[in-house]
Amino acid sequence: MTKRIGKQTVALQNPVAIISAASVVGPKEGEGPLSAFFDRVETDPLAGTESWEKAESQFLKDGLELAVAKAGITKDKLDYIIAGDLLNQNISSTFGMRELERPFLGIFGACSAMGEGMSIAAMLIDGGFASYIGVSASSHFCAAEKQFRFPLQLGTQRSPTASWTVTGSGCAILANASSCANPGVVVTAVTNGKIVDMGISDVNNMGAAMAPAAADTIIAHLRDTGKTPADFDLIITGDLGYIGSELLTEIMAREGFDISQNHTDCGVLIFDKESQDTHNGGSGWACLATVLSGYFFEQLKSGKLKKIMLVPTGALLSPISSQQGESIPSIAHAVVVEKR
Amino acid sequence: MTKRIGKQTVALQNPVAIISAASVVGPKEGEGPLSAFFDRVETDPLAGTESWEKAESQFLKDGLELAVAKAGITKDKLDYIIAGDLLNQNISSTFGMRELERPFLGIFGACSAMGEGMSIAAMLIDGGFASYIGVSASSHFCAAEKQFRFPLQLGTQRSPTASWTVTGSGCAILANASSCANPGVVVTAVTNGKIVDMGISDVNNMGAAMAPAAADTIIAHLRDTGKTPADFDLIITGDLGYIGSELLTEIMAREGFDISQNHTDCGVLIFDKESQDTHNGGSGWACLATVLSGYFFEQLKSGKLKKIMLVPTGALLSPISSQQGESIPSIAHAVVVEKR
Repeated sequence: MTKRIGKQTVALQNPVAIISAASVVGPKEGEGPLSAFFDRVETDPLAGTESWEKAESQFLKDGLELAVAKAGITKDKLDYIIAGDLLNQNISSTFGMRELERPFLGIFGACSAMGEGMSIAAMLIDGGFASYIGVSASSHFCAAEKQFRFPLQLGTQRSPTASWTVTGSGCAILANASSCANPGVVVTAVTNGKIVDMGISDVNNMGAAMAPAAADTIIAHLRDTGKTPADFDLIITGDLGYIGSELLTEIMAREGFDISQNHTDCGVLIFDKESQDTHNGGSGWACLATVLSGYFFEQLKSGKLKKIMLVPTGALLSPISSQQGESIPSIAHAVVVEKR
Repeated sequence: MTKRIGKQTVALQNPVAIISAASVVGPKEGEGPLSAFFDRVETDPLAGTESWEKAESQFLKDGLELAVAKAGITKDKLDYIIAGDLLNQNISSTFGMRELERPFLGIFGACSAMGEGMSIAAMLIDGGFASYIGVSASSHFCAAEKQFRFPLQLGTQRSPTASWTVTGSGCAILANASSCANPGVVVTAVTNGKIVDMGISDVNNMGAAMAPAAADTIIAHLRDTGKTPADFDLIITGDLGYIGSELLTEIMAREGFDISQNHTDCGVLIFDKESQDTHNGGSGWACLATVLSGYFFEQLKSGKLKKIMLVPTGALLSPISSQQGESIPSIAHAVVVEKR
């Protein structure tokens, strides 16, 4: 079992290339600071469909098709599609992907899903089970509010600690790096997380619920590999937002790891703090998926970033669990991506 | 990519052993014809908890713990736990597994999940990424009715084509066969399915919705490998029930494959047709998971069965998609299990 390092980490023996990535976002994301990096900004949040849920499926499908086109392959080359979303029974993914006629692996890791999907994909390719895998994640502000909190039509006031679910989808196409003349950007290691539950039950404070899970996975990766935070240009969490990011930095410091200089969070980056007041920042499955596909992937390709650790975080709750007085178990998966 | 055969199939190079399996079921399943094969029959459908959802989590946790004990290992040996369920945001799995402190991969494939989980686990072990993986699936009649149809308290009459969701959980522990003195029962090939949608939209006729997906995956496996149905002692679907099984046999015949002599369905086996009238038979994530763990695993271990194809089937719908007039996309994953 030489590919496993320590308790939770897998070092890939044949680094897996990310050969393309694409993002489709909604109008609010298109007005944000990363606007220029997204492949497509939809001005219609319904994406021409008749419901938020169908719109999310459309975003997911469009994102995958864009990524496939940018990779210069055809859909039938995909050995697997790995996708998921936060709607009940993952309908955005299953309805979004139903016309693609490729083997489908549905995942659920709440907003950690892009990390879960990329880690499974990287291992399946490294192991020789697949040549190309598409990994997609989506979310939609309106569908998520209706699902988890209140229908928008009620005009309910948002809590000061609430995050704003990103509308959009991100897709990465992973491939066997040895088959690429110039692999460019590669996944070199993955650390899948454990479920961590610190007893937080405020559904409007996901950042606080998820920060301990992010810390647990980052520390597991560092201990397994003997690395330090300084070995990474950036450690990028998914959607902890302002509150969760501060908490994460504190928890890490208490455990002896200084990430104050090279940690950032996609929920902090995607919206402008002043002009787009979203309270705690962006969240949702699409948060890291779009910011990775639209922004960080370009920074890696151009060499501005050499080595990053992606750590999307997920809050594993449902309205039913909250109504039954449960706390919010959380999870985070780490994926190390490097420029070659 | 020598491990891939044809378009969708992976032949494992180092067959992966199923070193143990365990099942926990509710009272109705305990009164059925397979009663003697289940590890534990809970007489209390709430399993000592205060809600159906929490009971399902308890079933899942108990099933995993029993399987780990039967495997003669400790929980900390598990490199991954792969689990899922059909409740919103997979809360049975995430709450059921939160105390286990092992890397967690959440999946969603509706009732095909045991196949999805076992196929991912088999590939991760074959690829050298893990030594031991626990794969679990659960469902609960009362939680599922509340989630997908009507709360039981309403006393709503069930449709004649409706299936009865199995209450319980099944867990299989997969391990590297080369580390086992006597591997016994091994996974030798997997075929992950595509999403198939034939336009059926009757949520009380899941068997009909899922039969085409089962046929698609079985035929993909046979074409990829050049095998015929006669190469298997049994081809075992998950929860097509009486209606779906008949349809599957018809579809297969039309495509030139005779499975009339060696096809069975866990939904048909788990309840007695006469004394336990469940209309179309059993269904749910736990249907194949419990019947595999409780019944077929023993038949394989004892050599009564030499080679089977497990084909759990999933209906990828949610109440929201049905309310929005959508049809029911379905999926099936095939896992070939042999006695060595």
